[in-house]
Amino acid sequence: MTVTAPNGFRAAGVAAGLKSGGAADVALVVNDGPATAAAGVFTANRVQAAPVRWSRQVLRAGKLRAVVLNSGGANACTGPGGFQDSHATAEHVAATLSGTGTGTGTDVGAGEVAVCSTGLIGERLPMDKLLAGVTAAVAGLADDAGPAAAEAIMTTDTRPKTTVVASGPAGAAGPAWRVGGMAKGAGMLAPSMATMLCVLTTDALADPADLDAALREACRTTFDRVDSDGCLSTNDTVLLLASGASGVTPSAGELTAAVTAACADLARQLIADAEGASKEVAIEVVGAASETDAVQVGRAVARNNLVKTALFGNDPNWGRILAAVGTTSAVFDPDQLDVAINDVWICRDGAAAAPRDQVDLTGRQVHIRIDLHAGAATATIWTNDLSHAYVHENSAYST
Amino acid sequence: MTVTAPNGFRAAGVAAGLKSGGAADVALVVNDGPATAAAGVFTANRVQAAPVRWSRQVLRAGKLRAVVLNSGGANACTGPGGFQDSHATAEHVAATLSGTGTGTGTDVGAGEVAVCSTGLIGERLPMDKLLAGVTAAVAGLADDAGPAAAEAIMTTDTRPKTTVVASGPAGAAGPAWRVGGMAKGAGMLAPSMATMLCVLTTDALADPADLDAALREACRTTFDRVDSDGCLSTNDTVLLLASGASGVTPSAGELTAAVTAACADLARQLIADAEGASKEVAIEVVGAASETDAVQVGRAVARNNLVKTALFGNDPNWGRILAAVGTTSAVFDPDQLDVAINDVWICRDGAAAAPRDQVDLTGRQVHIRIDLHAGAATATIWTNDLSHAYVHENSAYST
Repeated sequence: MTVTAPNGFRAAGVAAGLKSGGAADVALVVNDGPATAAAGVFTANRVQAAPVRWSRQVLRAGKLRAVVLNSGGANACTGPGGFQDSHATAEHVAATLSGTGTGTGTDVGAGEVAVCSTGLIGERLPMDKLLAGVTAAVAGLADDAGPAAAEAIMTTDTRPKTTVVASGPAGAAGPAWRVGGMAKGAGMLAPSMATMLCVLTTDALADPADLDAALREACRTTFDRVDSDGCLSTNDTVLLLASGASGVTPSAGELTAAVTAACADLARQLIADAEGASKEVAIEVVGAASETDAVQVGRAVARNNLVKTALFGNDPNWGRILAAVGTTSAVFDPDQLDVAINDVWICRDGAAAAPRDQVDLTGRQVHIRIDLHAGAATATIWTNDLSHAYVHENSAYST
Repeated sequence: MTVTAPNGFRAAGVAAGLKSGGAADVALVVNDGPATAAAGVFTANRVQAAPVRWSRQVLRAGKLRAVVLNSGGANACTGPGGFQDSHATAEHVAATLSGTGTGTGTDVGAGEVAVCSTGLIGERLPMDKLLAGVTAAVAGLADDAGPAAAEAIMTTDTRPKTTVVASGPAGAAGPAWRVGGMAKGAGMLAPSMATMLCVLTTDALADPADLDAALREACRTTFDRVDSDGCLSTNDTVLLLASGASGVTPSAGELTAAVTAACADLARQLIADAEGASKEVAIEVVGAASETDAVQVGRAVARNNLVKTALFGNDPNWGRILAAVGTTSAVFDPDQLDVAINDVWICRDGAAAAPRDQVDLTGRQVHIRIDLHAGAATATIWTNDLSHAYVHENSAYST
């Protein structure tokens, strides 16, 4: 049920002809309230797509009645005209929704509508098709259409990514409140947000500041630690909408825990479906002097093409891992580094330990543990291998 | 003639059985003087191979009588035993050379012998084979054996890299003085020195401080701006030995110019022969507020796997270039970025300009020009595409 699992939300996913194959490409999520609090986290890339600029501006008021998303075009690097397109899309959503009425009563304004786009950078969107799609999406809104919306935002994803987290003591009608979510993203997956669009919904009661704090903390340890290919996108957006329909006001800790669980679930699904990947790799750095050090080391290993190609070749090449660790400014003594691959400590004190042939790399899951012996901090970065399929997918098609 | 082109040098290249295929794998370069001044630049990686630790220590005295190099094993991440191996190799070179005498007269000490190794990380060298190879190399020293030495240091290189730069007014016997050089390196090619070994020789007269200044300036704008795969090695070493045999003392500017020309020539050869590359890509950043900004932007684009795979696919994907530029902290306005690929300005003011199909990417040479419109500084970074052959070469073999 994804974004429509929590009470107070409707969604739709329709085919508007933005994708050449005729698949669904316009999604709409509407918050029927009674509350309309919202928060957002956006790409750290300084080249930001028009919809990111629009939604960032809209979110300043901490309030969203709807989110419209399209695949089939990123509307990035499209100049002033591209920004006008995002604005016009929000206006059209607002006007069309106002005609139908929502649970929150009064007419919807464009300033209450976030816009997300994904697809090829540098081309204008076909606005006639997109606006007709929005009209169809409003007409198709349903409180069980979360799965259709999750399908409509897919690009090179091979499957939709959805999550539902139930929180609070369960009553006769189910758990006290829920967080639901959908995400897309398979390439340009890198830090400061994996390249992705994600909409989270909750029927908890929370004000915008609480939502913002919970969402930032959740992203910090989930999406921000996914680094599939080191490439930071222009369009990354994660939105959290709260309807308050459950009537329950969770504590800050409860809210953060539920949102983090939803983000972690979606982040793992992104890594599992990354373009051309044959491995899902957890790089766990332990014994770090600080969490910052642990993240820096994990990221350096995750981005090293020689480590990634070795993993694709089922080669437990710990020397390449050490060479990657050595490029960081983290606290460590090169002669005290330990590395385990799938629980076999093949490197101790910066030199060879267990024989390479004890490491079994035939499975899809790979766990690399790096002990810096410099403190007690830890962090895990999630990445993929670098495969022929990645090269093929990203050289044969424009994205 | 490479390292033996300048007067005062002999060299050798022999097969010692370190490589499985029986190819040459031990090289020796001897400075017969009359001077023995030298300088070195080493990897910025904090995980440093034993020969790097050894040679760095030796170079403190600013003097080298010989350099011994081996392929077939990097002697990196090999613990205290690995360092003893480097030391023993230098001792053996010194003792064997002392028996034969060199042009500089007195016996050679181990502290006058630099050691370089390249190959698989994490395994000890077979010292019996290596030392026997050193004995054979000393016996085979010749003043025309530079090419044999250049072949002996190759790993995945498909051809040797050599250079000769002639300087000063030519007399009856040729130019006044020369710089000769050889290099190896095809993978782990990244900044703060492309992964490589390089020995430069000159018959100019210069003291160690002048050599050091010339070498550092030369590396800064040549090897340090080669970034084939973003992977910084544990073994990078560039050495410059001066015999003074020409009797000519060039100015600092003349020396730097000749050494820079030699390094630039070798750097281009490294990029031309990089593992699996089908493109040689120059990323020229212009209009930068500072040279640091220009290098940062060039490097970010050079390391972006989506840009690199697009180039492999002959796709002039300027959107991916803008997304890479946006990850930097350089001074620029996203709405003023211009990008040309092979002289076609396909992006102006951060949006589409000339049609993509005007860009011809079928050739091996690619020139990307990025105008930040933020100042007058420029820099060029050299890189390669990301191809199936790169993935194959680095997943199928341990290096």
